Amino acid sequence: MRVGIIGGGQLARMLILAGYPLGLDFTVLDPARDACAASLADHICAPYDDRDALARMAEDCDVITYEFENVSLEGLERLQQRTRIHPPLQALAESRDRLREKNLFRRLDIPTAKFIAIDSESDLREAPKTLGWPFLVKTRRFGYDGKGQFLVRTAADMERAWRELGGNPLIGESFIPFQREVSIIAVRRRNGDMAFYPLSENVHRDGILHVARCRPRDSQTARAEDYACRLLEHLDYVGVLALELFEVHGRLLANEMAPRVHNSGHWTIEGSEISQFENHLRAILDLPLGDTEPVGHAAMVNFIGVLPTLADVLEQPGVHCHFYGKVERPGRKVGHATVRASSATALEARLHHLLALLP
Amino acid sequence: MRVGIIGGGQLARMLILAGYPLGLDFTVLDPARDACAASLADHICAPYDDRDALARMAEDCDVITYEFENVSLEGLERLQQRTRIHPPLQALAESRDRLREKNLFRRLDIPTAKFIAIDSESDLREAPKTLGWPFLVKTRRFGYDGKGQFLVRTAADMERAWRELGGNPLIGESFIPFQREVSIIAVRRRNGDMAFYPLSENVHRDGILHVARCRPRDSQTARAEDYACRLLEHLDYVGVLALELFEVHGRLLANEMAPRVHNSGHWTIEGSEISQFENHLRAILDLPLGDTEPVGHAAMVNFIGVLPTLADVLEQPGVHCHFYGKVERPGRKVGHATVRASSATALEARLHHLLALLP
Repeated sequence: MRVGIIGGGQLARMLILAGYPLGLDFTVLDPARDACAASLADHICAPYDDRDALARMAEDCDVITYEFENVSLEGLERLQQRTRIHPPLQALAESRDRLREKNLFRRLDIPTAKFIAIDSESDLREAPKTLGWPFLVKTRRFGYDGKGQFLVRTAADMERAWRELGGNPLIGESFIPFQREVSIIAVRRRNGDMAFYPLSENVHRDGILHVARCRPRDSQTARAEDYACRLLEHLDYVGVLALELFEVHGRLLANEMAPRVHNSGHWTIEGSEISQFENHLRAILDLPLGDTEPVGHAAMVNFIGVLPTLADVLEQPGVHCHFYGKVERPGRKVGHATVRASSATALEARLHHLLALLP
Repeated sequence: MRVGIIGGGQLARMLILAGYPLGLDFTVLDPARDACAASLADHICAPYDDRDALARMAEDCDVITYEFENVSLEGLERLQQRTRIHPPLQALAESRDRLREKNLFRRLDIPTAKFIAIDSESDLREAPKTLGWPFLVKTRRFGYDGKGQFLVRTAADMERAWRELGGNPLIGESFIPFQREVSIIAVRRRNGDMAFYPLSENVHRDGILHVARCRPRDSQTARAEDYACRLLEHLDYVGVLALELFEVHGRLLANEMAPRVHNSGHWTIEGSEISQFENHLRAILDLPLGDTEPVGHAAMVNFIGVLPTLADVLEQPGVHCHFYGKVERPGRKVGHATVRASSATALEARLHHLLALLP
C-alpha cells in the first residue's frame, strides 16, 4: 500500500520511518527540493495546490494525508472525489481558522477562554468589554509557534496590534494566566475505534514547544479524553488529532487542535508501545489501532535553530536522538530527543543533563 | 554524514531506518532494481564488485559497511585505500570461510566442535576417525540458512555427500546434539569501547532462524561475552559482530560468527534501549555506543516465505511488525515481528498467539 503525504517536513519524515516497517510505500508532495522527507520516499516536487501533482498523487496512492494545515482546501476537495483523504477536510477547515475552531469547541461544550471575532478597528476597541485586560489578538489563519499574535495590555497596545495585524480576519481572546499547558493525542479509526495517549505536559519557550513530558495517570486525563472524544466523533475523524488545553484552577480550557501528528506527541516514538506516527498510519489505512500505553517515563526536548553535537547527545543514557536533516536556521525545528527513564526522578535528572547541552 | 552500505536487503533497510533519526544519509549498492532498501536511500544499481560503482561510493560516503559476507574482498581491499570500511576486512575474510573461522576460534581458545578440512574424497573417508558418527560436511563458503550442508549418518551417506558437495572446499564437523543454540550480539567502537546485548536463544526450523528470545541474566552470559570479546579485540573490530554458540552440557561451543548486524538481534529494535542497527552505525562512525539493556521481555519471530495478514499481526498486543517490502518466495525472509511483554510468562502467551497466525 502506498500513502501520499502532502508536505515533506519532519512530520512526514517520522510518518515514513514508522510506516516502512509496516511494509508501506510513500509519496510526498513538497515544493522544496531539499524537503527533509524527500530522500526517504518518492518525491513530487511541486506546489501544494498543483493540480497535476495532486492528480498524480491520487493515482499512485491508496490514501492521502497531510502533515500541516495550510494546504489548499479546494485542491483537496477536488481530490477527494478520486481518492480517500484522512483526516477529514472538515477538521482541516475548522482547525485552521481560530474563530471557527473556537466556535466548534463551544458547540461541543468544550470550555475555552472568552473569545470574539475582530473584523474592524472598532471591534478591537470594544474587545476589552468582553475579554477584560489584558487580551490576545490573533490572526485567524496562518498562526503557529506564537506567530501572528499580539498581547494587548493597554489602550496604546491596541493601536500597535491593529497596525501589525489589522487587515487580516482576527480573533480576540481573554489572556489566561494558566497553571500549565497539556495536550492530548487521540486517534480514531474509520470503524469508530479510538485510543488516547497519556497527557503531555508542555513547556514553551519564545512561543515554541520546548519540553513535553508524558504524564500517565494525570488527574485531568478523563476530562481531556472526553473533550477529544467529542471532537473525534463530531468530525467522524480518522487519524491522529492533537488537542492543546490550558489548566486553570483545576479546569481545562481548549486552546487549539491540530488534525495531524503533533510535536507534543513525539515522545510516543520511544515512550509508548506504538507511536502516534504508526497509529496515524494504522488509522488512515483502517488497520487495528496500536497500544498507547507508556513505556517507562518519557519526555521530549525540541532542538530549535541549532542542533547540539551528535556525540554529546548520544553519550547521554536513555536519550534517543531525532535529527531531521534540515538546515539550521533561527526558530526552526531541526530535531528533538526523547529521554526515557525507569522513574520520574531519574527522568528529571536525565532531562537536566540533556538541557545543559543546548546552546 | 553519509554511510555507504554494500547490499540493499532487509539488514540495510533496518540500518537506514535506524540511521535517519541520527541525521545520517545513505547510499546502497545493490544490483537488484527492487532491492528492499533502495527506496529509502540513494541506490547505486550495479554488481557488488563493479569498480566504478565502488569508486563512486567511496567518493560519496564518509564510511562504508556491508550487510552480508559474500562481497568481493578484492574490491573492498582496493576501496580501503580511499575510504574507511567497517567491520574490518579480516573479519569478513575469516568469517566467510568456515575452516578459517574455526581455526580462528581455536587460536583464540574459543571451544568448537571437532573439525577437519576435507579437500578430497579420501579426506571424507577418513573423517569419521576424527569426528565420530554422525558428522556434518559443509561447504567452506556461501553457506547460509542451512544451505551447503550434509549430515553424514552412514558410509553410504558419504558418497551422496561427495556427489552433492564434492569439488568445493569442504569442512567436516562433529555433529553436536546440543541442548540449545544461543547467540551474542556484540559491538565495538574504534577507541576500543565495547557493549554486549543480552544473549539470544534461537530456535531454527528447516535450517532457518524461526524464533529468537532475549535472555537477560542467562547463566552463559559471561562466557559468551568473553568469547565475543576475544574476537573483537583480536580483529581490532569496529561495528556489530554476532557469534552463534551451541550449549552442550553446560559448555558453549562456537558455531559461527557474522561480521554484521544479525537476524538473532532483530528483537533489539524494541527489546533493548538502543538497537543493534543504531549501535552498528554509532560504532562505524566512531560515536558513543548506546545502552544495550533490555526493555521488557522480548522475542522475535521470522516470517519466512509468506507474510501473515498485516491486520492480524497489528491486532496482537505487544507485537511490532517489520515487513521488508520483499516479494514473497519460499524460504525467503520477508519480515519479522518483535513481541514484547512485561513478564516472561506474558511473553510466551503473546508468542503463542503470534505463532498461530503463521501459515
